[in-house]
Amino acid sequence: MPAVSKANFTTPQEAEAAFYRALAEGNFEALMEVWSEEDEVVCVHPGGPRIVGLAAVHETWRRILSGDTRLEIELSQSVATVSATMAVHCVVERLSVHGQTKRSAVLAATNVFVRGAHGWRMVLHHASPMQDQADFGDLSPRVVH
Amino acid sequence: MPAVSKANFTTPQEAEAAFYRALAEGNFEALMEVWSEEDEVVCVHPGGPRIVGLAAVHETWRRILSGDTRLEIELSQSVATVSATMAVHCVVERLSVHGQTKRSAVLAATNVFVRGAHGWRMVLHHASPMQDQADFGDLSPRVVH
Repeated sequence: MPAVSKANFTTPQEAEAAFYRALAEGNFEALMEVWSEEDEVVCVHPGGPRIVGLAAVHETWRRILSGDTRLEIELSQSVATVSATMAVHCVVERLSVHGQTKRSAVLAATNVFVRGAHGWRMVLHHASPMQDQADFGDLSPRVVH
Repeated sequence: MPAVSKANFTTPQEAEAAFYRALAEGNFEALMEVWSEEDEVVCVHPGGPRIVGLAAVHETWRRILSGDTRLEIELSQSVATVSATMAVHCVVERLSVHGQTKRSAVLAATNVFVRGAHGWRMVLHHASPMQDQADFGDLSPRVVH
């Protein structure tokens, strides 16, 4: 796909919104438009492996979005650290997965965006399952560091 | 502790090395010297809650390091995205926990550092358990997005 056809996200918020919209719609092309093509991108799936490099990230999303699973994603509690050329957003994702069975999960996601020639693009997505905040009192025995 | 006594990390690598050294030594004061005091810091423990704000991050590490657990941490496969004032490092942590029983885990960790008046400081640490890279072929059924 030629670069001219790509979306130009003028803020990291816009790129992040496009990412989650594409995910909810199962739109692989739109999802990949959000990812940077210039950096050594990283994707950590919940409980999954760490994927490094655009080709591998491309392949993992293609496979995930090739099924008939439908997602609803509700974001909350965004915390942002932003500079002129980089933005780190940490959000809580509440996911409902409508496949053969309905499942739901609460995830912590760290999304990193970099501003390049074509606007803001994602360079890292790190999502992991999160226990309920209410369980905080019971934290110590369970974490390994 | 007055600001003048704080370490001044001149690179994000230096700050990250101090973070893992403090963790391996169980040195709470040294660990907290790495954390930024100026930002809305975030810490996501493996499988644990998302902790936001310096006081809460302080408390969680105090509790974790108050036990007699001893850690060995081996880092590898670092991927960095860096600008003049922000750095994102994504590393693979191989942890061995020497407590009453010996456990080990492989984690993906995203560490974000910001350059401020006192050098580079951590503003985010997101660690999550990672399945073996060898399991990648089996990815699709297990991830929720």
